[in-house]
Amino acid sequence: MVAVQEKQDWQAVIQDMEAVIDPNNVIRRKEELLVYECDGLTSYKQRPAVVVLPRTTEEVAAAVKVCDRHNIPFVARGAGTGLSGGALPLENSVLIVTAMMKQILDVDLENQRVVVQPGVINNWVTQAVSGGGFFYAPDPSSQIICSIGGNVAENSGGVHCLKYGVTTNHVLALKIVTPDGSIVDIGGPVPEMPGYDLPGIFVGSEGTLGLATEVTLRIVKTPDVIRVLLADFTSIEAAGQSVSDIISAGIIPGGMEIMDNFSINAVEDVVSTNCYPRDATAILLVELDGLEVEVAAASEKVEAICRKNGARQIQSATDPQERLALWKGRKAAFAAVGKISPDYYVQDGVVPRSKLPEILEEIEALSQRSGYRIANVFHAGDGNLHPLILYNNAVPGELEKVEEVGGEILKLCVKKGGTISGEHGIGADKRCYMPELFNETDLETMLWVRDVFDPKRVANPDKIFPTPKTCGEAARAQAQKEFPNTERF
Amino acid sequence: MVAVQEKQDWQAVIQDMEAVIDPNNVIRRKEELLVYECDGLTSYKQRPAVVVLPRTTEEVAAAVKVCDRHNIPFVARGAGTGLSGGALPLENSVLIVTAMMKQILDVDLENQRVVVQPGVINNWVTQAVSGGGFFYAPDPSSQIICSIGGNVAENSGGVHCLKYGVTTNHVLALKIVTPDGSIVDIGGPVPEMPGYDLPGIFVGSEGTLGLATEVTLRIVKTPDVIRVLLADFTSIEAAGQSVSDIISAGIIPGGMEIMDNFSINAVEDVVSTNCYPRDATAILLVELDGLEVEVAAASEKVEAICRKNGARQIQSATDPQERLALWKGRKAAFAAVGKISPDYYVQDGVVPRSKLPEILEEIEALSQRSGYRIANVFHAGDGNLHPLILYNNAVPGELEKVEEVGGEILKLCVKKGGTISGEHGIGADKRCYMPELFNETDLETMLWVRDVFDPKRVANPDKIFPTPKTCGEAARAQAQKEFPNTERF
Repeated sequence: MVAVQEKQDWQAVIQDMEAVIDPNNVIRRKEELLVYECDGLTSYKQRPAVVVLPRTTEEVAAAVKVCDRHNIPFVARGAGTGLSGGALPLENSVLIVTAMMKQILDVDLENQRVVVQPGVINNWVTQAVSGGGFFYAPDPSSQIICSIGGNVAENSGGVHCLKYGVTTNHVLALKIVTPDGSIVDIGGPVPEMPGYDLPGIFVGSEGTLGLATEVTLRIVKTPDVIRVLLADFTSIEAAGQSVSDIISAGIIPGGMEIMDNFSINAVEDVVSTNCYPRDATAILLVELDGLEVEVAAASEKVEAICRKNGARQIQSATDPQERLALWKGRKAAFAAVGKISPDYYVQDGVVPRSKLPEILEEIEALSQRSGYRIANVFHAGDGNLHPLILYNNAVPGELEKVEEVGGEILKLCVKKGGTISGEHGIGADKRCYMPELFNETDLETMLWVRDVFDPKRVANPDKIFPTPKTCGEAARAQAQKEFPNTERF
Repeated sequence: MVAVQEKQDWQAVIQDMEAVIDPNNVIRRKEELLVYECDGLTSYKQRPAVVVLPRTTEEVAAAVKVCDRHNIPFVARGAGTGLSGGALPLENSVLIVTAMMKQILDVDLENQRVVVQPGVINNWVTQAVSGGGFFYAPDPSSQIICSIGGNVAENSGGVHCLKYGVTTNHVLALKIVTPDGSIVDIGGPVPEMPGYDLPGIFVGSEGTLGLATEVTLRIVKTPDVIRVLLADFTSIEAAGQSVSDIISAGIIPGGMEIMDNFSINAVEDVVSTNCYPRDATAILLVELDGLEVEVAAASEKVEAICRKNGARQIQSATDPQERLALWKGRKAAFAAVGKISPDYYVQDGVVPRSKLPEILEEIEALSQRSGYRIANVFHAGDGNLHPLILYNNAVPGELEKVEEVGGEILKLCVKKGGTISGEHGIGADKRCYMPELFNETDLETMLWVRDVFDPKRVANPDKIFPTPKTCGEAARAQAQKEFPNTERF
């Protein structure tokens, strides 16, 4: 790993940066740097030494070369909406922000491809092609503010990834800047290229292999018809069973989400959807899309399955406004929970679909044991849980306890044959749990791959891979020692 | 790269092999080695020094360790059906054949996963799960003889990969033996694992990163209804336009194949399907699958599109026997061409779908210019061409000329924004064309990744990556010089 120099000559670094990037886009004043101290995971904060906002691949490469010359680590940041601290800066690092690289470079409807710069916002891609009858499928909840560069780094998912796949399934090619400042093209214009699948390695590498500066995305045909069904159940097992039965019936919905009673009441308190029954133990939202007859037939089957499993009431809509109303509560769930509790901690874990009932029971038991209320809102179709642990950060020591409860949930996921992240990434937050999932040889193999791209380990160091003290309080204490200007949230 | 020792003590190697693998499965008699001189690409032949057939992961690891100790390169071979010479041995190498590792280790219908050894034949997987209503989607033409290990190495496709994706989209996890004999687990039980996507790199690496000894495959639900349509056209452009229009209409068929007039007549001459009209310039086969109403609606749309584009006649069937009859000619196309011409050379290239009409025209021009008849049978839905170049190998110099024509086709594909292999891999055959597709930095990046797994470059050396003299005659002359016992086909 690169030895961070004790007395870095930052003035020289800034001068070099200003020689290759518009000085207006080189930020070094402390009060301006504040904005960049953390991403969506606000419990870790760290002020970078310099922030640069390049506009082109060449500027990114030049900035990385300046870092290389001065032996400084760098961290990439897109829109900064990530939830695992993937864009958390280091004190002695340069933060390279791609937010100004906002150009859609090419739209090729005929071959269903779009080429974008990394700062392009996720849903701009859909906006650019929807007139032609296409959309960009991966749709994280943050899709109106998160950027494609960040999506690539974290291999983002969304409610539609059940049917359409996650980011890696929609990236055909990338122009990347490697940690020594080289510009390399990986992948190609068609889905399966010979040689090693380098885009496969790059997507989801969380900024540790370099920066993407151009991304060729696959777009898909907008379905003729979309129907949303909302079924309410008196037990969460019945909702989970319906999910299994729907998949077993050969139906792959666009999305399939479950919310528990607590979350239902939270959203009704805060956004009043007026369609989520407050007395339901769970609701199941199913979005079906495709040809009109296909959706009609699937919808009939889904209704029958839900009723067989004891659904009390099933609402359904194809009209865009009505569909939006059914989705409204789910989309607002996190915000609603945030309104009724001073703070919440969102976990992201995955279990095989068949283990959903078991894990929900165990999470409930954990909630009672720990005394923390846990709300469950999740992508049921692919077993991706998002338990929200409610707590009050003003009470000293609470965050640490809650992080521990979150960790317990992850360990349960792994024990059930699942994994520790469905779509938020590992980042700074979860690297201590990687050994739950991978043995030393597995992790070492990954590090060897990392060293191919980043032998000095200067690209987003201290992310993904565990180091002796990387969890919760221990990590923060360590950071405090190493980087005394770290502020606790 | 490992220095192959001039005077290898093969007796010692064999002794060591026999200590770790049942001596009945260590082959060293010249006449027995003959079988292993080539794979499906029969124009290159090379006898290995020793062949071993391990039965377990531990035996594979032990065999690889013997190679490592003696500094000998090794080549992995599955069923030996590959068409790019990926399993071509080297003279001074050990060939590790996984054909005896034929166990299906676990079937988990609930979570749609099957764990198999690499010697399991592709369609055994479907057979093992079809009773439960599932199938394994990647279906190369050789599916009744090719093995999953080889499919993983070559990232095999098939007619159904248009809708369902290729092998890499169906591999969740792998147990691999790396070139130093370590056993490493990559991937996991659920589709998206954190960390780098090592299965993504391994699948399609053509044996250059080690051997897979256990493969966790994703299976998918058998569709309720399958309908096959056969439309005949008086121009190949009209057939191609129909393909584009079908995709544009939001329909993703299970498969979509085009055959030209020459191929149609070849199959009628040889297998008499009695449903392929001999006077059609092209036929389009479309397989639709899904729920009954969905297939009915899509089928109506496809028929309308084909008629709009001038289809004269459209046959259609859902009954399994009748469907088989419509597919029969396509499935027998290669064999039929082989019957009417002394020899044929099958090429494998890809163009963006929109470029199909152009490239077919250019291939026709090339055929006229070169004087070789070229038959076209191809996966139209994903732009994957399989031109068959007819020639007579008994005429000296013909193979070399035909390889050149094949190379011209690949260059045309690249020029149109396509690639040099859709599903057969690069192997020994096409590595000289890699620089058409990738620049030096791109190839170097791949080699760095290779060195992570195989720093001595002992795993299937001289495949995928170009060396100064790697094409056709030049390669053979070189081999002749280096390995004088090479026989020309």
